[in-house]
Amino acid sequence: MNNPSLVSADTTADELEAILSTAQEAARALRDSAGGERASWLRAVGAAIDEERAELLDLAVAESHLDRTALDGEVKRTVFQLEHLAQAAESGELLRVLAEPADADYPVAARPDLVQAMMPLGPVLVFTASNFPFAFSVAGNDFASAVAAGCPVVVKANPGHPALSALTAEIVATALAKAGAPKGTFAHIQGVEPGVAALRDTRIKACGFTGSLAGGRALFDIAVGRPDPIPFYGELGSLNPVFVTPAAAAARAEEIAAGFVASVSFRGGQLCTKPGVLIAPENSGILDAAATALAGLEPVTLLTDRITGAYTEGTKSLSGLPGARVVAGSGGTSPTLVSIPPASVLATVGGGIEECFGPAAVVIEYRDTAEIGAIARSLGPSLTATIHGESADAVAASLVDQLSSLAGRVIWNGWPTGVSVTRALHHGGPFPATTSPTYGSIGVGSAQRWLRPVTYQNWPVELLPREVRARVLPAAE
Amino acid sequence: MNNPSLVSADTTADELEAILSTAQEAARALRDSAGGERASWLRAVGAAIDEERAELLDLAVAESHLDRTALDGEVKRTVFQLEHLAQAAESGELLRVLAEPADADYPVAARPDLVQAMMPLGPVLVFTASNFPFAFSVAGNDFASAVAAGCPVVVKANPGHPALSALTAEIVATALAKAGAPKGTFAHIQGVEPGVAALRDTRIKACGFTGSLAGGRALFDIAVGRPDPIPFYGELGSLNPVFVTPAAAAARAEEIAAGFVASVSFRGGQLCTKPGVLIAPENSGILDAAATALAGLEPVTLLTDRITGAYTEGTKSLSGLPGARVVAGSGGTSPTLVSIPPASVLATVGGGIEECFGPAAVVIEYRDTAEIGAIARSLGPSLTATIHGESADAVAASLVDQLSSLAGRVIWNGWPTGVSVTRALHHGGPFPATTSPTYGSIGVGSAQRWLRPVTYQNWPVELLPREVRARVLPAAE
Repeated sequence: MNNPSLVSADTTADELEAILSTAQEAARALRDSAGGERASWLRAVGAAIDEERAELLDLAVAESHLDRTALDGEVKRTVFQLEHLAQAAESGELLRVLAEPADADYPVAARPDLVQAMMPLGPVLVFTASNFPFAFSVAGNDFASAVAAGCPVVVKANPGHPALSALTAEIVATALAKAGAPKGTFAHIQGVEPGVAALRDTRIKACGFTGSLAGGRALFDIAVGRPDPIPFYGELGSLNPVFVTPAAAAARAEEIAAGFVASVSFRGGQLCTKPGVLIAPENSGILDAAATALAGLEPVTLLTDRITGAYTEGTKSLSGLPGARVVAGSGGTSPTLVSIPPASVLATVGGGIEECFGPAAVVIEYRDTAEIGAIARSLGPSLTATIHGESADAVAASLVDQLSSLAGRVIWNGWPTGVSVTRALHHGGPFPATTSPTYGSIGVGSAQRWLRPVTYQNWPVELLPREVRARVLPAAE
Repeated sequence: MNNPSLVSADTTADELEAILSTAQEAARALRDSAGGERASWLRAVGAAIDEERAELLDLAVAESHLDRTALDGEVKRTVFQLEHLAQAAESGELLRVLAEPADADYPVAARPDLVQAMMPLGPVLVFTASNFPFAFSVAGNDFASAVAAGCPVVVKANPGHPALSALTAEIVATALAKAGAPKGTFAHIQGVEPGVAALRDTRIKACGFTGSLAGGRALFDIAVGRPDPIPFYGELGSLNPVFVTPAAAAARAEEIAAGFVASVSFRGGQLCTKPGVLIAPENSGILDAAATALAGLEPVTLLTDRITGAYTEGTKSLSGLPGARVVAGSGGTSPTLVSIPPASVLATVGGGIEECFGPAAVVIEYRDTAEIGAIARSLGPSLTATIHGESADAVAASLVDQLSSLAGRVIWNGWPTGVSVTRALHHGGPFPATTSPTYGSIGVGSAQRWLRPVTYQNWPVELLPREVRARVLPAAE
């Protein structure tokens, strides 16, 4: 499976059966493994990727058409992400051990001795992203968080970078084996049908996905439609609106326009956090400056042919919205900016503006502060929402409640692209930003997606799982 | 709505529209409320229920046919539950505030200033349970946990106790109003159609359910089939197997049989934690003793006609399993014990044993330790799994891994009925025990079902939500 020469072959039914059966066996071994062991496996994967960086980057550049420097930064991030989750596994924090001793006088009825701890759900299926061939692909956050949690991972390769996926899979499998991880800790499958078959299989206990709304929704429906529905953690799409107050526009229109264009065009606009809509005061100069800057950028080679086609359709669709005016862009894959009047946005929910993956964005110029509020209320949920404001800015203050209701991360005087891998960074939001509003898909918190609580009642300490026992013994003795 | 004289009328479409619209407005007010305020509302509800206890108990006895002493204990539990969640709201722990300062040297890229905190999802719809007319009904755990989290609650009354529901709703609404809770914090609806209409409405952001597998699954499918799927937290059914090792059977067969019968028949066997299957060594005397004890119990008046009909069908279905032998029970609603040979259980997954709500259970007598292991592996997920074992009991030790894989609470030498309202008690499990394996429906943890994280990036401290600000200010100054 993990030979790049086999890149084009879909996983066969027999191969899939063997993979799922081995993953199920590995689930038991991983459940019994120590967090420190799992940390060492993740670190081994990180070191192996770092070692093969040059060859990986060659394939990534060739297949994704992304900038080599950006991809190099992404490799660093991927290795750090593995370390970040290794630390979480090693520290035992993921176990969330909570011990309450027996209490004969507990209200209502005597309380037995209780120890609660998290345990892994079992084999996790991961559908990888096209736009982060390292950080959200074979050895990306879903892989790292699931292994940190103690779950075997079956990764479905993204068709956008098949050779890179195959080589990464080979590196991961070899590193895990050398580091002593149980057979079946990781497997790599290819093809839509095998992916769907795996998703329907009762041995798969949870699923992670990063991709489009249409694809993600179809897989979500399969996961929750099973006789035994499983948790499906998908990140599906986001407009990431940016609101500019009159005060901010007056103080720094040029700077805001430049920052917006840089964020829209970063990595060809192919980021889930790309600011897709800018809401700015009319005649502030921001629209014109952004249009000029974006029009000066070259057409982009997008990740895949499918994404190229969708981009062409998407920009057409934005241009066709009522009252829309194309202020930058000449068709094809040229960076595109479309101005849409507030009346069109307010006529229907969100004005029919849909995420357009690639270097396209919409600007809505508002006339007064009542209109900026109405636009905020008309937009649907996103991963992020941003305000550019000044100190003691009443317009900004009036937006805070609405924006924190519709997004999982709210940003002040910054841009949504560029995401820290850290505990306090929540990467998620109400549907369709993510299918589950309660967990994000970056950082230590994302490992909790693959865990569930178990309470041990009056349980003999010697029969507690080893790592739980180690954490309650001081209290139990 | 909240007048007992209107008990039989379904909520009309106009009434529902007004209720949902008011709940949506209340969501904003609740989001801005202080945890201490919400605690005071919950305590006011508890005090009001306690004050009206006599009248409530009269209705509960009449409608549920449950024992008055048991119901009185349940009222105490309900009041304590409100206090338990009030304390969680008041302490601020539900906010899970996590602040990470800006760090220019953070790995890969500079980290901005980040503050993460939980915020309420919005209006929550609750489908109440028939078997706990207080603790899982109008003012039960789902209501208490949602209000503690800052979410308005729309409660769909259980048809099993309509007058009690209406009176409780009146008491809750009056207590909330007197305590200063925003209008729309709580509403009460009646009827299947209005319940389904509410579940489909975009203003409802999450749903709690306690009831049958069939009903819960139908509602789950609606919730996840919405254009904007919402979290559905259902508790649907559980067999709660109890495993008796040879050593435990040798040491205390009589005691185990008596404990089993008491647990099976408690509250007419109408508990989600009823031990539905006992796995004991053959010829240990446990089967005979349990059969004799159960046969000596009177037929039970079950909660509703529907449940009575399902019980008659369910006991027939158990009696019809291959090789089944009815060892106690004379049809109707008489307590029933059915012995099923291991071969039948191992022939298909779980042997086709389905939860039978009421005072019925199955005993499976195993011949050797290989068979007890095979039976454990054949059973599906449950809320609980229990081992009766002795110290240094190798058979017990061999079961631990399997049982903690299939249940959310594992019990040593006890019985699954009788559930503490406390932090370390997890009440949930893999589907169908609960629809979400990651959250339970009892205690402080259950409030996290109604919350989601939001990260504030480089956010001005003065624009943070009041209660979040109070918790980061020492660090921010």
